[in-house]
Amino acid sequence: MTKGLMVVLSGPSGAGKDTILHTLLQRDPRVKLSISATTRKPREGEVDGQHYYFVTREQFLAMRERGEVLESAEYCGNFYGTPEKPIRDWMAAGNDVILEIEVQGGAQVKQKCPDCVGIFILPPSIKELERRLRDRGTETEEAIQKRLDAACGEIQHARDYDYVVINDTVENAVEAIQNILRAEKYSKCRNFDTIEGVLNND
Amino acid sequence: MTKGLMVVLSGPSGAGKDTILHTLLQRDPRVKLSISATTRKPREGEVDGQHYYFVTREQFLAMRERGEVLESAEYCGNFYGTPEKPIRDWMAAGNDVILEIEVQGGAQVKQKCPDCVGIFILPPSIKELERRLRDRGTETEEAIQKRLDAACGEIQHARDYDYVVINDTVENAVEAIQNILRAEKYSKCRNFDTIEGVLNND
Repeated sequence: MTKGLMVVLSGPSGAGKDTILHTLLQRDPRVKLSISATTRKPREGEVDGQHYYFVTREQFLAMRERGEVLESAEYCGNFYGTPEKPIRDWMAAGNDVILEIEVQGGAQVKQKCPDCVGIFILPPSIKELERRLRDRGTETEEAIQKRLDAACGEIQHARDYDYVVINDTVENAVEAIQNILRAEKYSKCRNFDTIEGVLNND
Repeated sequence: MTKGLMVVLSGPSGAGKDTILHTLLQRDPRVKLSISATTRKPREGEVDGQHYYFVTREQFLAMRERGEVLESAEYCGNFYGTPEKPIRDWMAAGNDVILEIEVQGGAQVKQKCPDCVGIFILPPSIKELERRLRDRGTETEEAIQKRLDAACGEIQHARDYDYVVINDTVENAVEAIQNILRAEKYSKCRNFDTIEGVLNND
């Protein structure tokens, strides 16, 4: 059994990460989405162990203390983080696991797990990103400007990722990610054992 | 137009490089095979500019002096080398260009062109390689032993390549290479301009 990949997926709000992930997960059941732990209260309809692992502040801090989360951050007084164990279990079972996290979290994971695969999703242009954010029709002008400023800041970090995928169409972006996942299985850094195996096996 | 890739393909004799390349070139007309220059005389049926660029010793040494070959080597008193210009022209036209060369030449190209993609083709095992070499039925026991020794030496260099592909079946190996070529288009190191473009375009 080939071990699965750990994949960090980032990109600015409005780049279309959620739609891409939804399509990718539907298309390839071997791909799993990492589940975050959080100290915030579950919202209506959210299921523990499916949308999040809901934990207390004490539980979260203890997990982090024991080095059990790959990255963590605090928003609005709540902790969010990525527990490592479920990811490793999926990987060992041959699943590729996607961590959908923002660029600060992505940098933490890359430092802890240098062999993770970093993919950054780009909008075709900032203008197109603005159009998409406006089309949602759910945000004030001020909120949109804030998101656009944040997006430009995040895109500066695209260079820290292994791959850059422009979401011009969902179909193209999903295919690109599937290609990357397949190709990465052949990466030299994942195949030192393969080389040894060929030399030593009869 | 996306610029094509420069791909260095190596692997021991008997690993099946020629069959893989033949299938790949047939399947994808965008993939081109680099043509070597040589000072040896053309054999029956060999066409200049198709099988090789046939040049004089003086022409070859002048080309090399001018830095126009990516790698070169001398076998049995003849020079062989890879002229850079035709490769760059193909790449500019959007073609991926494959350089089928041995590991010493591969190392020279990687040093000159760090953004080339290195792929090493492995046999499933040394025993299987031996079986394939014997099945050819064209070589003496001594020649086979020499090839096997050389193969083990070459496989040590697989670690210097970006990707390692086991040729268990031609179909799998060709698909692996096609996946690698597609994925490499999204590699961060080929997309600095893309990132700038998104940030600066309206």
